[in-house]
Amino acid sequence: MGKSVNPDLAKARSQATFDPANLTNYLYGGPEKLRRKRYLPAFVFKELCTEMSLTDLCLIFLGLLTHVSDYLGLTLSIENMAAKEYKEEGFKSTDDMSREEAYEESMRRAVYTNKRVLQLNLQDQEEQYYFREIFVPGANPFALHYVMFKDAINTQGTEDQIQKWLPLAETYAVTGTYAQTELGHGTFLRGLETTAEYDVQREEFILNTPTITSSKFWPGALGKTANVAILNAKLITKGRNCGMQSFWVPLRHLETHQPLPGITVGDIGPKFGYHTSDNGFLQLNRVRIPRENMLMRYSKVLQDGTFVPPENDRLVYVPMTQFRFVVIGRSGWTLAKAVTVATRYSAVRRQSEITPGGGEVQILDFQTQQHKLFTQIASAYAMIIAAKAAKDLYDSAFSKMEKGNLEDLPMLHALTSSMKAFNTWEMATGVEQCRMACGGHGYLLASGIPQMYTDMVSACTYEGENTVMCLQAARFLNKCQEAANKGERLPQLTRFLQTSRLNISSSLDQDVDLNDIIAAYEFRAATVISEANARLNAGLAMGKSQSEAWNYASQLLVKAALAFSHWFTVRALIENMRGAGFDNSTETLLLQLAKLYALDGMLRYSGDFRKVG
Amino acid sequence: MGKSVNPDLAKARSQATFDPANLTNYLYGGPEKLRRKRYLPAFVFKELCTEMSLTDLCLIFLGLLTHVSDYLGLTLSIENMAAKEYKEEGFKSTDDMSREEAYEESMRRAVYTNKRVLQLNLQDQEEQYYFREIFVPGANPFALHYVMFKDAINTQGTEDQIQKWLPLAETYAVTGTYAQTELGHGTFLRGLETTAEYDVQREEFILNTPTITSSKFWPGALGKTANVAILNAKLITKGRNCGMQSFWVPLRHLETHQPLPGITVGDIGPKFGYHTSDNGFLQLNRVRIPRENMLMRYSKVLQDGTFVPPENDRLVYVPMTQFRFVVIGRSGWTLAKAVTVATRYSAVRRQSEITPGGGEVQILDFQTQQHKLFTQIASAYAMIIAAKAAKDLYDSAFSKMEKGNLEDLPMLHALTSSMKAFNTWEMATGVEQCRMACGGHGYLLASGIPQMYTDMVSACTYEGENTVMCLQAARFLNKCQEAANKGERLPQLTRFLQTSRLNISSSLDQDVDLNDIIAAYEFRAATVISEANARLNAGLAMGKSQSEAWNYASQLLVKAALAFSHWFTVRALIENMRGAGFDNSTETLLLQLAKLYALDGMLRYSGDFRKVG
Repeated sequence: MGKSVNPDLAKARSQATFDPANLTNYLYGGPEKLRRKRYLPAFVFKELCTEMSLTDLCLIFLGLLTHVSDYLGLTLSIENMAAKEYKEEGFKSTDDMSREEAYEESMRRAVYTNKRVLQLNLQDQEEQYYFREIFVPGANPFALHYVMFKDAINTQGTEDQIQKWLPLAETYAVTGTYAQTELGHGTFLRGLETTAEYDVQREEFILNTPTITSSKFWPGALGKTANVAILNAKLITKGRNCGMQSFWVPLRHLETHQPLPGITVGDIGPKFGYHTSDNGFLQLNRVRIPRENMLMRYSKVLQDGTFVPPENDRLVYVPMTQFRFVVIGRSGWTLAKAVTVATRYSAVRRQSEITPGGGEVQILDFQTQQHKLFTQIASAYAMIIAAKAAKDLYDSAFSKMEKGNLEDLPMLHALTSSMKAFNTWEMATGVEQCRMACGGHGYLLASGIPQMYTDMVSACTYEGENTVMCLQAARFLNKCQEAANKGERLPQLTRFLQTSRLNISSSLDQDVDLNDIIAAYEFRAATVISEANARLNAGLAMGKSQSEAWNYASQLLVKAALAFSHWFTVRALIENMRGAGFDNSTETLLLQLAKLYALDGMLRYSGDFRKVG
Repeated sequence: MGKSVNPDLAKARSQATFDPANLTNYLYGGPEKLRRKRYLPAFVFKELCTEMSLTDLCLIFLGLLTHVSDYLGLTLSIENMAAKEYKEEGFKSTDDMSREEAYEESMRRAVYTNKRVLQLNLQDQEEQYYFREIFVPGANPFALHYVMFKDAINTQGTEDQIQKWLPLAETYAVTGTYAQTELGHGTFLRGLETTAEYDVQREEFILNTPTITSSKFWPGALGKTANVAILNAKLITKGRNCGMQSFWVPLRHLETHQPLPGITVGDIGPKFGYHTSDNGFLQLNRVRIPRENMLMRYSKVLQDGTFVPPENDRLVYVPMTQFRFVVIGRSGWTLAKAVTVATRYSAVRRQSEITPGGGEVQILDFQTQQHKLFTQIASAYAMIIAAKAAKDLYDSAFSKMEKGNLEDLPMLHALTSSMKAFNTWEMATGVEQCRMACGGHGYLLASGIPQMYTDMVSACTYEGENTVMCLQAARFLNKCQEAANKGERLPQLTRFLQTSRLNISSSLDQDVDLNDIIAAYEFRAATVISEANARLNAGLAMGKSQSEAWNYASQLLVKAALAFSHWFTVRALIENMRGAGFDNSTETLLLQLAKLYALDGMLRYSGDFRKVG
């Protein structure tokens, strides 16, 4: 097959009414970034062709799908091109391996990649990410080391601690994990049971997991890889509970990799996805660490055991908010990959006749197939662009925050929480729709889509379970509604609660104005938020306590958060596509796409939209 | 832990307002069937405790979930109890194994079970199924042998052929598969390319797969297990294409298990689920088989090559329709299992406070969790009961069919096609909702839910891809609408197209009458079917050909088929619960459940229901 392009694909591409290059540059953040994203892996592949045993072939099954490019403007991650080259070199996939073998293979690739990143002196985080994801296509055993572990040191450590520990992490002298969740405790942080008791005599903390349910459970890299954890535990000093703090806790011997005394640690077993990640459990039986091992940028424990609380602890949540941006954006990119696979497949797969005797047609010619794919293409764009818009909002607020002005933080927290839930759920539904749109072939791991699903769907649960995320966002939205009811000034993003009016001049039968679409979404969000608030107040009026009334209204509160995200997404998509300075043909197409996205959403939630008119 | 029951579960059960025994008997088809279902596995487990290495532990993770019973009336399959016993005996799960190891383990169990079924002389198909599913919890490598292979001989073979081949199959002297789908051809049967050309000289058929796309692809057991296939190929005799026929084709040597001359065969690789199933590919290079190997109950080829067409070929589709009932029912049972796991988990998992300082509550106390689970419990019941109702309809029509009266066949075909799509899609969404309702623990294979999903979701694609199924059903519904437009007499199930009127006396604010609910679903189905028909006619009026207009209306036609199934399901649920003769408390509860199901459906499709008023 070599580099030849399937004629059905070539034909489909030739029918494009626009030049995808501009759009591709936009999506990847400019031509230079795109060039690097393409160059880096290609460079290393050439060098390593004989050294690495890589694959996970994503697409390209028995010649049904060929070649990678920018079809429909969505660049399929270059890893697939690599996969094809490696397949041609005869390398093997890890799909058939036992979990242990797959972990070992993944580890071998990851270690190699870590070495190369240092040798090549790749500094940019994003470039490191692109580079690594080619070599370790599934879960990377160091995933927590790269991000959560190093970020925790960076953001929660003192300058001295950063000086001491970060170089160890950068050079892999230690390998880390971040241990927060316990077997019995996930979303409710105050329920965490692991304790760190200060022993003033020896100036040490005693770490303890007193019950089965207090076992740390789920941290990636804990099962086999890590020899150090940044661990969250309830600080107890002078007999007083001083809340959750973070500690640097050595887990395994640096030479033998055996668990240190008092430590029981292992892998939690096979999962839906993330086969090559060694999520683990950890029990601590009165393990002692020096006082200096507490991360003391914010809170401190003095030698005599005095607890010094942070001046401002809300910045502690900044890294969490930042990581949610990663999840929000990656949801869109994952859906983009899945729908690219499914769209190409639909261009080359011929099945059934539309006109009897007319020959079998590309399945892309069926309206039902078009509906499945085009709505998901639109959804992928919407998520990617809304994630960018949210990040821009955050970045412009961040400089204010650094100067101590935290007024935007609750709004941004609500936005990221609700978008995390909205995007991951939409992604999950969308990826499965794309997989099924490939018929049986989508069910093969070789299509790449099953692994996209099983790996990424976990994001509906991790970093804040989605329903809980919606309720957190709803807390903010409900407060805004209360303020609106009183006529108070509202945060920027929720001002529509006071102003939203439905004044739409067109109906679906006519050509719909994009501003009307935004207004309709805004009005729907305002209505749902106000209904949730009314139900909460009705609960209170029935004599329920605040918390019981909250539970009583929770189903509507979740809906309110999702309607808020949906409005933000529709608005971001339309406004950014309109203002990005594309050439005419590209802009026309993108606005059609935005309209498709918005109208499809209206159909899916037509009950709401009919209700509001 | 032994046999002790978690106190949270015991408490939840003690609050039941009804006796689950009646309901359990109803669901399993009477006390004797239930007793056998429980007795058989228990009997064999005792005997085999030391012989078999079995598990796949479904539930029961680190003591979070205990014991199996009839909580909420849904009996979790007894395999979980077995799993627990085996876990206590120290047996290992196959979850961590490579695919090859897992297949071998699965084969070892399957062979053992086959032997025992013969020794115990278990005749009843259903009992055989229960018995086997304990020992081979994932995909059974003989799954196609038990059903499709033997059924094909039974229904398509002549008496002589049945006498000759069935005993070979029954005693496993041969192991079979059923090979229809090709790499390039799934739903469009006329597109299949494999040929069987009759050679009058040697009185043999020459089987050939002339292209890559004509390779047989997907049949279970073909990859490694089977040594014979019932194979579909285009019959060519006297130079004439005589359509698809079935042939008995030896694939592998009965002693060495090596592929026979001209045959290339192998496994198609790892999949989303069905890890222990060896779905395979097959190429035939002018392979010769005797004339007697064509299954000749319906069509025949005489010695001289004369083709004798069947007297009535519509009965050929009866086995296909029958197998769809299996899929329809199994969707409900799979969802029932998943929601049972999730509900138990929610009773024992404590997380977050509702009242601050009030202690962490069972997550089942949260309204959002209740909504997730209760709607899925209702949905599982609805699917199981609607499947029973459809089967009853079929059985009563079958005696007519056997007497040559086939008038009900199109209606039943439409019903099973649309229900297959509706149930498998609802099941897939529901199982994932249950999995996510278990938070992180649902992501562990140990919860059992990921495998329920990955195995059963394939039913959205196999045995007729769901969108194609909907369109097949819609063909019938559209014909009925055309007949209704002309005032002609309609088949029983679609008479509402002429009579349905919306005349509902209550609104959602009042207590809703169940008959009004059925009427609302009926009216919605009638409206959607009529809209689809109108769109089709609008397409024709625009000058489109019949087939182009069909494509133009296809999105609405799919919707029409689903609305039809939804109505049938709601009606079957309400009418069967009302008429089953339960005691008062059980009936009250079941009618509440039916109402929950129907009202939740109205909310999910509130756009449709608002539109129709």
